[in-house]
Amino acid sequence: MSLTLGAILYEGFELLDMFGPLEMFTAIPPDKLQVVMVAEAKGPVAAGSMTMAPGLPKVVADFDFSDAPALDIILLPGGVGTVPELENEKLLSFLRERAAKAQITASVCTGSALLARAGLLDGKRATSNKQFFSLATSQSQKVDWVERARWVDDGQFVTSSGVSAGTDMALAIIARLFGQETADQTAEAAEYTWHRDADEDPFADQLNRMA
Amino acid sequence: MSLTLGAILYEGFELLDMFGPLEMFTAIPPDKLQVVMVAEAKGPVAAGSMTMAPGLPKVVADFDFSDAPALDIILLPGGVGTVPELENEKLLSFLRERAAKAQITASVCTGSALLARAGLLDGKRATSNKQFFSLATSQSQKVDWVERARWVDDGQFVTSSGVSAGTDMALAIIARLFGQETADQTAEAAEYTWHRDADEDPFADQLNRMA
Repeated sequence: MSLTLGAILYEGFELLDMFGPLEMFTAIPPDKLQVVMVAEAKGPVAAGSMTMAPGLPKVVADFDFSDAPALDIILLPGGVGTVPELENEKLLSFLRERAAKAQITASVCTGSALLARAGLLDGKRATSNKQFFSLATSQSQKVDWVERARWVDDGQFVTSSGVSAGTDMALAIIARLFGQETADQTAEAAEYTWHRDADEDPFADQLNRMA
Repeated sequence: MSLTLGAILYEGFELLDMFGPLEMFTAIPPDKLQVVMVAEAKGPVAAGSMTMAPGLPKVVADFDFSDAPALDIILLPGGVGTVPELENEKLLSFLRERAAKAQITASVCTGSALLARAGLLDGKRATSNKQFFSLATSQSQKVDWVERARWVDDGQFVTSSGVSAGTDMALAIIARLFGQETADQTAEAAEYTWHRDADEDPFADQLNRMA
């Protein structure tokens, strides 16, 4: 009974938002967890960065919104591409439909702005990127936005702070699903010093610095 | 006068070896640094993991060994794909040819095994992944292999320990090329707690645990 994690690609996603968590999730054997790459359309999807550099890495989506398998876990990155996607009803609809059936929907960085726009975080606790925190909070007043948190675990929805925080959140999700020892071994094999405390936020003082 | 960084893809490269450093390097404005994705053949290249999971992310190479532009910086990841690539004379030749002209050739994790196999590290100080350290050391006796290091900076060649260590090394390279303030801002924007001390190695006790 393998779980399936769907990693959602869109133009301008942030590289480490996606691949910090996927480094950890792909260390779980495929008889326990399989990762699939999903986007609105199959094929290469270009990452983005604040500098709008050309030629950023393109990652291939193997599934689109119509043929993605059932997803037990959804991983939604942030990035400069978040802003245009706030108006992408196809993505928001896909997230609403699939999050309702998923065990865990996890966002990194500004990915929580998309979940909030979709209405999925209403009545829940959540966090987001520190330097652009208001991008998330402006999407819904009905979310209990947590300013100081490395990540926030509200059960079915888990949201992390900016970029690197997603890796710490991913290890916490691995601990919940597969046990603490598996999470510890996964971090060690990647020579990763895991921030284990969700409430300890070294970057809280950057709140809205760039907003 | 923008510098060009060539990120080298091969089948079975480790995701975070590549995208931890690229998260940091792509934060540098393109008028100072441009990133190009290079592989033996153009097109999608699949990542690998120790679990040999199917369907791992595929990243697109925009250039091959024959048409890659002049490279000022070379970024070489490790991963399970390192072992077959040790026999790939086309890759080793490309590395020899391009490293000779590059300002910095940087490897992550088992990537240093490939540099050692190519003879590029002879007479130099270098390090590698801790759990598979002997994979690197067995490639050349003429390298001064450093067992305890987050990364080792030998000027033209910079090598890091396993996976996550590459991100710390990348920030040190950014500091060298673009200044400490730029490196600090890059780490902060990614909400990344940078291990700044190259000699402090939290994972040295894992030496050859999996070899």
